[in-house]
Amino acid sequence: MNQLRLALVPGEPAGVGPELCVRLVQSARTHRLTAFGDPETLQAAAHALDLPLRLVAPEDDQGRASELALHAIPNAVGVAFGRPDPANARAVIDALETAANGCLGGDFHGLVTGPVHKAVINQGGIAYTGTTELLATQARCSVVMMLANETMRVALATTHLPLRDVADAITPGALVATLRTLHAALRSDFGIERPCIAVLGLNPHAGEAGHLGQEEIEVIEPVLASLRSEGMVLEGPLPADTAFLPARLRHYDALLAMYHDQGLPVLKFSGFERAVNITLGLPYPRVAVDHGTALDLAGKGSADPSSLIAAMATCARMARARSAIMAR
Amino acid sequence: MNQLRLALVPGEPAGVGPELCVRLVQSARTHRLTAFGDPETLQAAAHALDLPLRLVAPEDDQGRASELALHAIPNAVGVAFGRPDPANARAVIDALETAANGCLGGDFHGLVTGPVHKAVINQGGIAYTGTTELLATQARCSVVMMLANETMRVALATTHLPLRDVADAITPGALVATLRTLHAALRSDFGIERPCIAVLGLNPHAGEAGHLGQEEIEVIEPVLASLRSEGMVLEGPLPADTAFLPARLRHYDALLAMYHDQGLPVLKFSGFERAVNITLGLPYPRVAVDHGTALDLAGKGSADPSSLIAAMATCARMARARSAIMAR
Repeated sequence: MNQLRLALVPGEPAGVGPELCVRLVQSARTHRLTAFGDPETLQAAAHALDLPLRLVAPEDDQGRASELALHAIPNAVGVAFGRPDPANARAVIDALETAANGCLGGDFHGLVTGPVHKAVINQGGIAYTGTTELLATQARCSVVMMLANETMRVALATTHLPLRDVADAITPGALVATLRTLHAALRSDFGIERPCIAVLGLNPHAGEAGHLGQEEIEVIEPVLASLRSEGMVLEGPLPADTAFLPARLRHYDALLAMYHDQGLPVLKFSGFERAVNITLGLPYPRVAVDHGTALDLAGKGSADPSSLIAAMATCARMARARSAIMAR
Repeated sequence: MNQLRLALVPGEPAGVGPELCVRLVQSARTHRLTAFGDPETLQAAAHALDLPLRLVAPEDDQGRASELALHAIPNAVGVAFGRPDPANARAVIDALETAANGCLGGDFHGLVTGPVHKAVINQGGIAYTGTTELLATQARCSVVMMLANETMRVALATTHLPLRDVADAITPGALVATLRTLHAALRSDFGIERPCIAVLGLNPHAGEAGHLGQEEIEVIEPVLASLRSEGMVLEGPLPADTAFLPARLRHYDALLAMYHDQGLPVLKFSGFERAVNITLGLPYPRVAVDHGTALDLAGKGSADPSSLIAAMATCARMARARSAIMAR
């Protein structure tokens, strides 16, 4: 791999995704970047922000400031910032699938995505539960969702489940698969030879020796014991309320939370602006922004590009770590 | 109330409680303070830390540095720091109950408590699930547990329940009672005339309009609507992962989390050292340290007294706010 090539999908055209892409490319890059989306929308976003943007063909990409290589996926109808149109849902999904296909085919080393509006995609007649799930299905992989910023990496054993369904979803098989994917990705994509993973308990105080629930004793501890015997470094099951104390965080390469609201409030509190959403387990690294379409801000120039900038930097680092390991 | 009087219970004698009390009273106080515990243990803690301590009778309390008024509740057996003895369980509970009785009887305006070791109390043959529960039973009150530091106040709708039991425990009746207690306490004990309370959803993304659970629609929203019609300022149900963003926290006088690990990881991450555990709904303010007995540190002088210092300061502020309102 002489030069790193990343694919970029702005996401919902009426949201802040297009303008964040425009702001992202105001600086020059040391790698190649190809966007998948609608040219008029990107130009309109640049115009709204009064920023320069020159769209070029992917083969002409030089990574210059204010220049963006584009693989055009035209929208069906014109875009009004702040007002998403389900008629463009197909184009949004096409852009994701085309870019991901390019990653699967080896044209790109990683995928960076902006925010998508789930309800609008569904209103457009497309069954869609999330980009993570779409990419996993397309690549036929089981994946793990991990949120990260400078302070911590938090992976999730379950994601978008009603709380009352969480306990039954924590099965030995699912937990083993999640920990294997997380462990392998910390090695291959983050270059951590012997990662230390902190595994949270399901119940308060990690069940307090069975007084506050049995899942730690019956499910989590046996899984950890089994994976430790294979050489994984796993701490836990830990009480969630003290696992995130800053003095402890320093020892962990990642934490595995059992469910969404056990891990994400603290992650976002600790640094929302530069948090990113990483999909582990795909044949390529995929990193998304950790915010929504922010329709109320779209086209106004006040949306903060920090998360997209961090997503691109994280994806580039992961792709480089992976290729260094592949090159051995 | 000419002079504020607080009761102090060191908690487990073999833990860090006694030495934290010794460190607490190295500075002079502007209010009166009476400890309930074993004199020899307090002296041994002072000796171990090489700090001065003069125990005086409660009526002789002048609040001078290195002086502590003591209501003696002798231990059954001698104490070795770091090695709790169930034979002293009765004395630990007696100290709590005697001090609380003094608060109920009007001898004290508030109660400050150190850490207790639950398993050791149970081994001593005493049914005990926690000091909060003990005080609620004694006072025949329904109470709310709230953790607080300089950054946020987080109250809990459920506390020490297995996760799989949480969803069914969020009933309209329980939620109304919790919010009434929280709202009344923010007014009386914190002097906030018109408190703004952020109520979290039970499910991820607060249920995402019913796609990720029904409890927000069926239970939480109707309760909030009903209490708003009485004049309470309630936001929510809010997605937990974004409710704690620092820019939003500024608008909330307190957050109500639906369960333990939804609210406490972020609270402790944001400032564990000075976090305190407040019991709302009692006839008197009660504030505890937000840490355990730390048996490994006991007698070594390295335990951080910040939480106990913050607990005393918080209890004093709450007692003063309450009496100011009572005096109207």
